[in-house]
Amino acid sequence: MKFIQNPPRADWAGLLERPTQDYAALEETVQFIFNEVAAMGDAAVIKYTALFDGVSPKRLKVFEEEFSAASSQISPELRTALEQAKANIEKFHQAQQTPIVTVETTPGVICWQEKRPIEKVGLYIPGGTAPLFSSVLMLAIPAKLAGCKEIVLCSPPRKDGSIAPEILYAAQLCGVTEVFKVGGIQSIAALTFGTSTIPKVSKIFGPGNQYVTVAKQIATRFGVAIDLPAGPSEVLVYADETAIPAFVASDLLSQAEHGSDSQVVLVASDDTILSQVQKELNQQLEQLSRKEITRKAIENALMISISNPQEALEFINAYGPEHFIVCSKNEDFILNGLQNAGSVFVGNYTPESAGDYASGTNHTLPTNGYAHNYSGVNLDSFLKSMTFQKISPEGLKNLGKTIEVMAAAEGLDAHKNAVTIRLNTLK
Amino acid sequence: MKFIQNPPRADWAGLLERPTQDYAALEETVQFIFNEVAAMGDAAVIKYTALFDGVSPKRLKVFEEEFSAASSQISPELRTALEQAKANIEKFHQAQQTPIVTVETTPGVICWQEKRPIEKVGLYIPGGTAPLFSSVLMLAIPAKLAGCKEIVLCSPPRKDGSIAPEILYAAQLCGVTEVFKVGGIQSIAALTFGTSTIPKVSKIFGPGNQYVTVAKQIATRFGVAIDLPAGPSEVLVYADETAIPAFVASDLLSQAEHGSDSQVVLVASDDTILSQVQKELNQQLEQLSRKEITRKAIENALMISISNPQEALEFINAYGPEHFIVCSKNEDFILNGLQNAGSVFVGNYTPESAGDYASGTNHTLPTNGYAHNYSGVNLDSFLKSMTFQKISPEGLKNLGKTIEVMAAAEGLDAHKNAVTIRLNTLK
Repeated sequence: MKFIQNPPRADWAGLLERPTQDYAALEETVQFIFNEVAAMGDAAVIKYTALFDGVSPKRLKVFEEEFSAASSQISPELRTALEQAKANIEKFHQAQQTPIVTVETTPGVICWQEKRPIEKVGLYIPGGTAPLFSSVLMLAIPAKLAGCKEIVLCSPPRKDGSIAPEILYAAQLCGVTEVFKVGGIQSIAALTFGTSTIPKVSKIFGPGNQYVTVAKQIATRFGVAIDLPAGPSEVLVYADETAIPAFVASDLLSQAEHGSDSQVVLVASDDTILSQVQKELNQQLEQLSRKEITRKAIENALMISISNPQEALEFINAYGPEHFIVCSKNEDFILNGLQNAGSVFVGNYTPESAGDYASGTNHTLPTNGYAHNYSGVNLDSFLKSMTFQKISPEGLKNLGKTIEVMAAAEGLDAHKNAVTIRLNTLK
Repeated sequence: MKFIQNPPRADWAGLLERPTQDYAALEETVQFIFNEVAAMGDAAVIKYTALFDGVSPKRLKVFEEEFSAASSQISPELRTALEQAKANIEKFHQAQQTPIVTVETTPGVICWQEKRPIEKVGLYIPGGTAPLFSSVLMLAIPAKLAGCKEIVLCSPPRKDGSIAPEILYAAQLCGVTEVFKVGGIQSIAALTFGTSTIPKVSKIFGPGNQYVTVAKQIATRFGVAIDLPAGPSEVLVYADETAIPAFVASDLLSQAEHGSDSQVVLVASDDTILSQVQKELNQQLEQLSRKEITRKAIENALMISISNPQEALEFINAYGPEHFIVCSKNEDFILNGLQNAGSVFVGNYTPESAGDYASGTNHTLPTNGYAHNYSGVNLDSFLKSMTFQKISPEGLKNLGKTIEVMAAAEGLDAHKNAVTIRLNTLK
């Protein structure tokens, strides 16, 4: 841990820095696999699945009987938990629906904005030691609510050629239309170009390792949109003397257990809090199953005291944390002045893990400072806004002159003429 | 022009294709200039301004007296036109403001979504023979409404070292905070890294040539967001016997005059309409000042007849035009089924140029098929959505079990513990 007291502004830039991510070395590999998938389709997908996942599934697509089998393996306890989480995520994302916006900007000139679904979306769910089914909920639920027609999920097969039953169950529960046992670069390439079994999609969502991250970046060169650029997960906690040190420590640890590159920052109003939290960190760490990963991330944690709340706020805004937890008597001051954060957790009884799983907010959030310029995944991530306008002859009389004058001043005669030729019929 | 009657679906893919854009050849140049601007700041910006624009402005920043001088050069007629356009664009974008969304998803669990401005944005306005001041309105007005604090505009200096008065006037009118006489790759690099005179921004907006397009792509590798990937401008008109051929021709021509690579598509319900429009095209073309550019684009135009309206709708959705004009007795059918388009112009008295300048809708729109997965620029383009949650002790009792069960099933102990440690204090 790095302890810093009231850092002068000149030192902020160094403290705010994220680990550099240089993926240039991976690009060649990713591009190579993209080219093969583009040229050979399923054959290339199968080849790289054998190479990277060590299995050759008989078929890439998950069929009905596998879903039923998965369903029977889910404990009643987990089933109930998923139902509550789903209900909350649905309520919160459904409420984000925006009405059609209609404005008569000039008499006879009616403009409106409507959002319509992205028709085909791809969701990527990583493999690994434990199945990350919560990301299925976070991506498939808003996709379904938005009205996406094809919701395609790719996840790498396990050593036995199957996908974890939790992922299949969640996919079915949330309205995923097709699941494929394909992971890594080859799955992103397949969703980008389409193969005979895997459909081409318009937008790809979801977390992944550095290969998947680079593959998603490269997918954008082929016209596919992506949810967010990725980076290591991060939390910043702002705590004053009203914060409960044991709770703060538990939140820092839950961020740290994601990976040894997790970014963990505590900004406290004084040094006493820092040392209280540190003590709790050391105690709680010993109880954890993912102790080694967690310890590594905690070793790199920043423990900063900033006594002036205004200065603390400015530091937090400059950092732009993915997850921001505030336990402070100045809660309103901080929330009102907050400019850059992905998702915010307010008060002692709001752990980050609530938002990771079940409160209703989305856990697909901007990391790496991207909270300055990107939204986390929300209902709109699955929609695009379209505008419409309908002008009556009277409306064109009211607006025509303005268009003609502006088009002429930009030297665009044909733009002007499209109005003039119409106005001439109305004289 | 290419005339096609009721193309079989097997031929659609070929018809829907956009010109391939291979920018790989430019990347090296762009990256080289990015590296120089990152390392040398203003010195590199000045060097490349001299090289590409042939001028060495005494200072890069536009000062107060230049704004006043510009203002005095704007005709009263253009001034009035800009006022009406600004009022309409303001009304329509202001109406897009979304309220805070608050939901108590479980008793004691309150989640909300708020949009807050991207603090620093950069607007790029190309140079060229005529000043494209309309893009200043389209970008600066929503930026100002969104509450962006720094709205920085870059535009290349003209041969005499100045920026067109129309651009400066519009910038001032719409609340741009700083204007710099810098264009091309060097301006995008400066906005990406910041220099001693040009601020670093979080998101870059605006049109540009192929160098600017590639520079914006490369900017995203350095953490900057961009409005949209770019491609040649395009219009698709759907016309049946209720359309007025002369009007349709004038719209196709106004798209065509943007550049010889403009994409111009007419889908008509029968062949008679195609030949009527063709006749009008040839007549009107002769009157235009940008005849040569326009003719070249018209030569590549697609003139397609599709007699079945459902099939026409499917073709239009597959194409996903940037601008879509519909003049048809089946207007409602088409609008209801429309899935992919940037901005839509309805009826005989709604020319595309209305939306280009003054109706109120934005003219920064997805080209190149991006209407399938990207929104055009709108108020939200200058905001990011943040989520918040506040859970009461009672709320955590209601939700805690679900989080614990899910975290345990994902093998994330510390996530579970952040809840357990809190619940233990509530027993």
